[in-house]
Amino acid sequence: MMKEPQLMKKNLKGLKIKLREFARDRDWDKFHSPKNLSMALNVEASELLEIFQWITEEESLNLSDDKLNDARDEIGDILNYTVRLADRLGIDPLEAAFDKVEKNHEKYPVEKSRGVSKKYTEL
Amino acid sequence: MMKEPQLMKKNLKGLKIKLREFARDRDWDKFHSPKNLSMALNVEASELLEIFQWITEEESLNLSDDKLNDARDEIGDILNYTVRLADRLGIDPLEAAFDKVEKNHEKYPVEKSRGVSKKYTEL
Amino acid sequence: MMKEPQLMKKNLKGLKIKLREFARDRDWDKFHSPKNLSMALNVEASELLEIFQWITEEESLNLSDDKLNDARDEIGDILNYTVRLADRLGIDPLEAAFDKVEKNHEKYPVEKSRGVSKKYTEL
Amino acid sequence: MMKEPQLMKKNLKGLKIKLREFARDRDWDKFHSPKNLSMALNVEASELLEIFQWITEEESLNLSDDKLNDARDEIGDILNYTVRLADRLGIDPLEAAFDKVEKNHEKYPVEKSRGVSKKYTEL
Repeated sequence: MMKEPQLMKKNLKGLKIKLREFARDRDWDKFHSPKNLSMALNVEASELLEIFQWITEEESLNLSDDKLNDARDEIGDILNYTVRLADRLGIDPLEAAFDKVEKNHEKYPVEKSRGVSKKYTEL
Repeated sequence: MMKEPQLMKKNLKGLKIKLREFARDRDWDKFHSPKNLSMALNVEASELLEIFQWITEEESLNLSDDKLNDARDEIGDILNYTVRLADRLGIDPLEAAFDKVEKNHEKYPVEKSRGVSKKYTEL
Repeated sequence: MMKEPQLMKKNLKGLKIKLREFARDRDWDKFHSPKNLSMALNVEASELLEIFQWITEEESLNLSDDKLNDARDEIGDILNYTVRLADRLGIDPLEAAFDKVEKNHEKYPVEKSRGVSKKYTEL
Repeated sequence: MMKEPQLMKKNLKGLKIKLREFARDRDWDKFHSPKNLSMALNVEASELLEIFQWITEEESLNLSDDKLNDARDEIGDILNYTVRLADRLGIDPLEAAFDKVEKNHEKYPVEKSRGVSKKYTEL
């Protein structure tokens, strides 16, 4: 009878449920086509980019508390839209991520890619 | 003595560890400044956008198997760079996402935002 | 002796000069590496994307005056960063654009691509 | 009677005409909603970003001939989509760009912004 505690688990599945409810309560499913969500995801990813655009790589490793909080907010947005979009497409984002790491193991063999930032097509 | 099984858990923490090892094995930490990772994240988010750019919203809800597989790959890449970037900034992406949902509850009250796609600044 | 009127011409060359002066007067050349400018360009392109993210394609053809003004501002920013980045790379953006149209004539032959939105690699 | 040479002028107006003809010949106007074009523009801007993602700012000022040619192609694409999108919205991109420089003169007064990369809201 009590399903809520299960749903509230702080993992990606719990987040997926939370985001479904958030959209349903606001009647937003009609806006949440994968096409539109892919746009929203890019907008958020770009707001993260904005934080780093004029600073050096070294400075990006030593953000002020304010900037770090901004980055945290954007990372939250990005994860939310990624999970929401994956849900609308019926994709498990965690499985997709682990599978992609496996593929990258083959595309970027350690001996060929050590210390080199080239794309696999150029290795 | 046996720590591996714990690390291999299929959750965001396990993914974080896997990505750390992947970068360390290739001596890629020097490329993985938050600045650079925010660029890589945007590149992947845009590859997802490319899948949807010329199709309708409705078509985006009914992708072919090929396109769905492409989307799955990109979602994997996006989650990987999000987790990797968060790790480099010392941010817990899941906590950030749940906190952002809470903030959005306040920015988008149900009664004001039902069926409306306006930004909270315009509500 | 009088070169200014020539420089102020409202074309891409005049714009290039204006942007050079703008950066020089503020000692901003040090921030304007092609890497950073490519980030700024993406940030602006994404602010344009934000205008269209939740509306339909049809609505995007009938923007309100406010939204149209927002779009105009973003298009201005995008053109400015494109011209500025091209200048820093020693590229003529107009020549690059005309050349790209020529290439696309070959990649997308009329008979194969009529009414079809497929990428040239899929034609 | 002979209007073609005028149309072929290598300026933004000539480019706009060329892009109109390109789309019309392929029956692509139906795909070219401002919403879709804003997505395509972001995809191209991100392909430019990809060139710079793992290199340093200094390296971005000294691209190899191959990378410079890649960047040139992407800048061509970006300008083409900017001009095409502006055309579909009835906006003159050059006027928009010059107007935006004027606005930025006010947002970033020389004395306040010299040598500083802060956003105008933080000045």
